[in-house]
Amino acid sequence: MTETTARQRKKILVVTAHPEPRSLTAALTAFAADHLRAAGHEVRVSDLYAMKWKATVDADDFPEHPAGGRLDVMGASQRATLAGRLTPDVAAEQEKVHWSDAVVLQFPLWWFSMPAILKGWIDRVFSCGFAYGPEVPAPYGGGAALAGRRALLSVTAGARGTAFSDRGVHGRLADVLHPIQHGVFWFTGMEPLEPFAVYGANDLPEDAFAAARQAYARRLDALFTDEPVAFRALAGGDYDRDMRLLPGAEAPGTSGLDLHLRPAG
Amino acid sequence: MTETTARQRKKILVVTAHPEPRSLTAALTAFAADHLRAAGHEVRVSDLYAMKWKATVDADDFPEHPAGGRLDVMGASQRATLAGRLTPDVAAEQEKVHWSDAVVLQFPLWWFSMPAILKGWIDRVFSCGFAYGPEVPAPYGGGAALAGRRALLSVTAGARGTAFSDRGVHGRLADVLHPIQHGVFWFTGMEPLEPFAVYGANDLPEDAFAAARQAYARRLDALFTDEPVAFRALAGGDYDRDMRLLPGAEAPGTSGLDLHLRPAG
Repeated sequence: MTETTARQRKKILVVTAHPEPRSLTAALTAFAADHLRAAGHEVRVSDLYAMKWKATVDADDFPEHPAGGRLDVMGASQRATLAGRLTPDVAAEQEKVHWSDAVVLQFPLWWFSMPAILKGWIDRVFSCGFAYGPEVPAPYGGGAALAGRRALLSVTAGARGTAFSDRGVHGRLADVLHPIQHGVFWFTGMEPLEPFAVYGANDLPEDAFAAARQAYARRLDALFTDEPVAFRALAGGDYDRDMRLLPGAEAPGTSGLDLHLRPAG
Repeated sequence: MTETTARQRKKILVVTAHPEPRSLTAALTAFAADHLRAAGHEVRVSDLYAMKWKATVDADDFPEHPAGGRLDVMGASQRATLAGRLTPDVAAEQEKVHWSDAVVLQFPLWWFSMPAILKGWIDRVFSCGFAYGPEVPAPYGGGAALAGRRALLSVTAGARGTAFSDRGVHGRLADVLHPIQHGVFWFTGMEPLEPFAVYGANDLPEDAFAAARQAYARRLDALFTDEPVAFRALAGGDYDRDMRLLPGAEAPGTSGLDLHLRPAG
């Protein structure tokens, strides 16, 4: 536990998604909240199952959408956002995101991605006009909608860690989570950290759970000091007008999704 | 349109996810169903929004789960599946998947992944004991639970195609969709094809829509003849006991998620 001065006191939103209050996910959520509070931070938790979060984007999300009118989701989302006419559940979550200095998503990897209820939190809360879109500061950079917020994925997986290692059969964890790390966080201007993962989660022995808590504590202590993943900036001169990385921008031998990291050194 | 003999007559399940019946997604779904039927195939469509599909896995999915009992999702899923005690909505979708020779998922890329309602179709329908798990034939291979079925992702994206190209800022489309292509389809023994994508989908001119239909028709005509993505078999001798690719198994210079493709030639 670190001492926290007023200057270091931060606001953290933890969003968690598991139907069982006695699950490993729930235990890690409680651990994170307690640990961060003990370090002097403010913490709010959105427990999506406990909140009975509506997962599905539909016309009911846009109260002013005319009945029978053709639903253009992005357009309706932007109009409702800019007019302040989103549903109260979505507005409340947006307020929490705005309030936060960091967002932690705690979830079990289901089919190598978020549980549907958490995907539905992203789909609904990260509305056009809030998290991206022509009417908010350009995404992908310092002036972006959600810029200045740290973002940490904290996942549990049934598989062993080697299966998510560099040469692991499921792909590197960073590559599997790329649609969230880059697609959601980077896209909206947030600063994604390396994900934190607990493997073998279907039957975790007590000593492994204790080790996981210790490792998680270290990551939480460094939530505002660890270097974010070094994704390139779209406006940084590395990409052409068609959003392709310029020839030769990468270090020799770099390929795959690593192309979009700034070369080290 | 190709002539179809009795031998070539196939069964195709199209699963589609968009809240607006006049959307591009709905139009592509109708086009695919019509085109495949005109070629002599049998087609069933699961329109998740029209069905008011329940997106979220919870205790209600397992009617015999004891009230107040700790919900271990994988265990409860397996017990309900093996006992034939899943909810009727899930059982009906599993019957369709079993019936099918190919599954087509038609959806808009929302946050670089499936809309929550479709993720919830995977989360609930691909239950333990149906799509994977210790009590079904080992996944990742010829004897796997859903082996023998073709799988095609047909997506629409607002971005331009170059942004999803080899050097595109969002990552190659194949890498962005890897959690589905490899994580869902390969994992359950299905045979994923290269995804089909329509870009610039937020405002698609009529001539681009016509071209998209033509391109989609060619992909649908080749649904059972195109070579699937050449993912390596886990039991094929390429991986060690910790599920890591063996040193030197790849062609020189191969890295990233391409490690898990069989070398060409």
